[in-house]
Amino acid sequence: MLDYKDWKPADLRALIREGGLDAPTAGMCSGYAQGNLVVLPEALAYDFLLFCQRNPKACPLLEVSDAGSRTFPVFGRGSDIARDIPRYRVYEDGVMTGEYQDVSALFDKKEQEGIRLVSFLIGCSFSFEADLLEAGIPVRQIEEGVNVPMYKTNIPCVPAGRFFGNMVVSMRPIPHRLVPAAAAITAGMPRVHGAPVQIGCPEAIGISDLTHPDFGDMVTIREGEVPVFWPCGVTPQNVVMSSKPSFVITHAPGHMFITDVKNAELRL
Amino acid sequence: MLDYKDWKPADLRALIREGGLDAPTAGMCSGYAQGNLVVLPEALAYDFLLFCQRNPKACPLLEVSDAGSRTFPVFGRGSDIARDIPRYRVYEDGVMTGEYQDVSALFDKKEQEGIRLVSFLIGCSFSFEADLLEAGIPVRQIEEGVNVPMYKTNIPCVPAGRFFGNMVVSMRPIPHRLVPAAAAITAGMPRVHGAPVQIGCPEAIGISDLTHPDFGDMVTIREGEVPVFWPCGVTPQNVVMSSKPSFVITHAPGHMFITDVKNAELRL
Repeated sequence: MLDYKDWKPADLRALIREGGLDAPTAGMCSGYAQGNLVVLPEALAYDFLLFCQRNPKACPLLEVSDAGSRTFPVFGRGSDIARDIPRYRVYEDGVMTGEYQDVSALFDKKEQEGIRLVSFLIGCSFSFEADLLEAGIPVRQIEEGVNVPMYKTNIPCVPAGRFFGNMVVSMRPIPHRLVPAAAAITAGMPRVHGAPVQIGCPEAIGISDLTHPDFGDMVTIREGEVPVFWPCGVTPQNVVMSSKPSFVITHAPGHMFITDVKNAELRL
Repeated sequence: MLDYKDWKPADLRALIREGGLDAPTAGMCSGYAQGNLVVLPEALAYDFLLFCQRNPKACPLLEVSDAGSRTFPVFGRGSDIARDIPRYRVYEDGVMTGEYQDVSALFDKKEQEGIRLVSFLIGCSFSFEADLLEAGIPVRQIEEGVNVPMYKTNIPCVPAGRFFGNMVVSMRPIPHRLVPAAAAITAGMPRVHGAPVQIGCPEAIGISDLTHPDFGDMVTIREGEVPVFWPCGVTPQNVVMSSKPSFVITHAPGHMFITDVKNAELRL
C-alpha cells in the first residue's frame, strides 16, 4: 500500500499539483504539520484576520499569504495554494456550491474581476495526535480508520466585523487515567488548537447526542473512557456558513495543506 | 511609599484617567499583566495586524479593539484607551511629535476627520519577570531600579504590507547556571514574548557594544553572568520609525496599559 507516509512535503505537493492524488491526507508525510485552508477576497481579510486573533484556540493562524499571492513562503516554500490540496470546497453566500481538485481558474477569474484573494493557513489537530500516540494515548478514529467526530457547540466565538458563529469541537474518547496526560500534551501545542475546551460533560457545551456528530464519523467510546473535546479547525467553515460572506474557498474536510514545518517545530 | 502594588487594575486605571498618576507602571497591580499600546488609523490596521501575526515573538497580540472604539473589553473592561495610560507618545511620519497624558482630543480630532482608530494591545515582559523572580532568578534592572536595557538588532522582522523593520531585544544578565531555567520559564509564556532569541552572543545579532543600549538603561553584568536577549515590545515603535506611517499613538516606554488579566492566565 502506497501511503505516502515517508514522502517529503514538497514532493507530495508536486504530485497533488499534477493531479496525481485525490484522497484525505491523514498520515501522509509523517512528522510534518498539516493545515486548514480559508481563502477570502481582500475586502474580507481584515475581519477574518481579526476573527482568528480573537479566537486563537479554534483558529490558530500558521500563515497568511500576501494579497493576490498563491503561495505560503514559510510553511510551503514553492507551494501553489490553488493546486496543492487534493480537494477544495467553494462557498458562496454561506452555501457550498462546488468541490474542485484545482481552484486556479477561480483565482484567475477573481483576479480578472479586480479582486485579490488572501489565503489563511490554520493549525490542525493531526499535529497533536502524533504526540498523543507517541505517549501511548489511543486515538480512536485512527484505530477505526474513520474521520474524527466533530460537533457544533453552544460556545460563541468572539465576533469580529462581519464574522460570527459558534465553535466546532472534535471529540476523542480517552481512558480516564490518561486524560490528564492528554490535556497536558495538547496544552503544550497552542498553535494546533492546544488544550481541551471540555472534558466529560458534552451537555455543558450544547452537545445532546454524542452518537450523531455534525461532521465526521462516530467512534466507539469504551467502558472507562471519557469524551474529551478540543477546539476544531472546522470552526471557520461553520463561521462561513453563519456569516455568509460572498465568496470563500476552503479545503475539503480531511484534505489538508501539507506543510514543510515539522510538528515538533510548532511547540514554540 | 504608595507603590500601587496591591491596587486592583480597574481602580488604578480610574486614578490614571483622572490625571492622578504620571509615572512608569512597573510593579503596580502585582500579578496582573501589563501591555504595550499601538494605535493606528483603520486604513493601516490590516497591515499592522498581519505584521503582528507574522512576528508573534516581538509582537504577541493580546487584544485588538473594534475600529473607532476606545476600549479593550476583554483585557480592560470599562477601560478608556485614550486616558488610562499615564503617558502616551505620538509619531507622525515616523517622527515623535509629542508626549501626552491624555490623547482623547486626538481620538476626537481623527473622528471628526472621518478616520477611525484601531488600538492594539501587545504582551509585555513584565509578566514573565514576576515568574523569573519567583524562581529565584535575578532581574537586574529591578534590583538596580532602572529601565531594562534594550538594543536594536540585525534580525529583520517578516514584513507585512507597509510595515518593516528590525527586532528590538531586551537584555537581562543571568548567572550561567540559571540560564536553562530562565529559558524554560519564559518559553512557557509565548503571549508575553516567550523564549530568548539569543543567549550569550550579542555580536551574532548585531549588538557591538552592550554598554550603550539603544533604549533604557545599562545594568551591571557580574562575573559568571551571561547576557540573555528576549524579543521586546519596543519592536513596534522601532518598526513605526522605520516604516513612517502618517499617524501612530503608542504608550511612552515603561508607562503601560494595566490589564484585568493575571499573568498566570497568559500561560495558556
